[in-house]
Amino acid sequence: MFIYETMVRLHDTDAAGRLYFANQFRLVHEAYEAFLHSLGYDLSEVLARGRIALPIAHASADFHRPLQLGDALRIELGVERVGRTSFTLRARLSAGGHVVGHATTVHVAVRLPRGAKTTLPARLGAALKRASSAE
Amino acid sequence: MFIYETMVRLHDTDAAGRLYFANQFRLVHEAYEAFLHSLGYDLSEVLARGRIALPIAHASADFHRPLQLGDALRIELGVERVGRTSFTLRARLSAGGHVVGHATTVHVAVRLPRGAKTTLPARLGAALKRASSAE
Amino acid sequence: MFIYETMVRLHDTDAAGRLYFANQFRLVHEAYEAFLHSLGYDLSEVLARGRIALPIAHASADFHRPLQLGDALRIELGVERVGRTSFTLRARLSAGGHVVGHATTVHVAVRLPRGAKTTLPARLGAALKRASSAE
Amino acid sequence: MFIYETMVRLHDTDAAGRLYFANQFRLVHEAYEAFLHSLGYDLSEVLARGRIALPIAHASADFHRPLQLGDALRIELGVERVGRTSFTLRARLSAGGHVVGHATTVHVAVRLPRGAKTTLPARLGAALKRASSAE
Repeated sequence: MFIYETMVRLHDTDAAGRLYFANQFRLVHEAYEAFLHSLGYDLSEVLARGRIALPIAHASADFHRPLQLGDALRIELGVERVGRTSFTLRARLSAGGHVVGHATTVHVAVRLPRGAKTTLPARLGAALKRASSAE
Repeated sequence: MFIYETMVRLHDTDAAGRLYFANQFRLVHEAYEAFLHSLGYDLSEVLARGRIALPIAHASADFHRPLQLGDALRIELGVERVGRTSFTLRARLSAGGHVVGHATTVHVAVRLPRGAKTTLPARLGAALKRASSAE
Repeated sequence: MFIYETMVRLHDTDAAGRLYFANQFRLVHEAYEAFLHSLGYDLSEVLARGRIALPIAHASADFHRPLQLGDALRIELGVERVGRTSFTLRARLSAGGHVVGHATTVHVAVRLPRGAKTTLPARLGAALKRASSAE
Repeated sequence: MFIYETMVRLHDTDAAGRLYFANQFRLVHEAYEAFLHSLGYDLSEVLARGRIALPIAHASADFHRPLQLGDALRIELGVERVGRTSFTLRARLSAGGHVVGHATTVHVAVRLPRGAKTTLPARLGAALKRASSAE
């Protein structure tokens, strides 16, 4: 499991006094960016090269408990599946010792500029498989 | 079907040159706020009264095609289910005549400040049922 | 004066129950994008061509009154100055008949990929001058 | 000087491949929240009590160099002025050893729910003065 720790800031909240739901997806993506970095895989280089992209094809989340300004949030990120052209990540969010939510994201490799599905970059696929089997 | 039309703005995009995935959820929520307003139901009044809230308990989305800066986006919002304490909305997003994504959100009525599930406000439940059967 | 009308949505607000200050800048930029569009100048085409960019070099804002969820916001955008390599816009924000804020943004033309200052695209400069003198 | 370190994430960027300008204000506010916390002053408690708020009355920023995805950002926050009802903070942003921007924010104490100016909470005013003279 890759662990990412962050905090609910004012801009994450809304007038209901809670973490705005779409911002939970954003925080999970921050964890994903840190996870890629930990695998030695740099998203900014991939974008700069401009040959492939890794768009999200599906995302879902459950929200079990409301999060508030100042809450320390722990995101555990695991690799659920690594396929030929895509991979699935699973996040478990907790705060104050309670599980507060889950999220799943499916990432697909596409060739630019057209966007046709392509095989995952070999180094990324291998790193994800290692991360997956390490759990 | 309730129709909400908007446009992809610079702040919606990211360095990959596309609509950032969590912002699709945000745009769907904008459509939901406009939909509630069209039902004569004012989210700001509900929040101001502070007795109930309607948090999202589950959200999922599919992303079929990338959206870019300036794309005109059409969101069709329908009521999929109205229960005693919750309701489910289904959004279909299209741009340039193509379906570009779908989203589903489950909204639950809770009593504040504790957050226990409660029955949907009667007027809202009735309005959602009318909207549901009108489809 | 170019007029842009929008509304304060849930994601614009924060746990203080108000429009989060940085989101006022975002809404002013939405008005700017619509203004460029009204001048026949398409930001997405400029970005796609990748030869020049128009980054913001300075931004300032005053916040006179708090804005809340559901407030209808009117943004009047005027051209304050058009120089050789930059231009300055001035926004006046009002809601419910009251002025609620002001913002000023300075936009500079730069040549990509290096980012050296360059003269404003001729068509844009001319359109901004026309908009400026029309006030 | 209070130091806050963060990183430019994908959601901070836009289709121009740079940090979106309003997000620089957001990152400066994150630094401010961490600064208040370091002074033993908890914004979420202040909001929960609901007696005073500290809205931003003025904000300005200069953007010297573009920031990109993955850039490590260092924000140095200093107290520029502490008055009876307001205080001014000054932020210097740097990345890769270069100053990339500055920001100034003026925060005013107001009594809720009306929003009339009021004296700064004594403990906060004293802590800000100590932080100010320590520079």
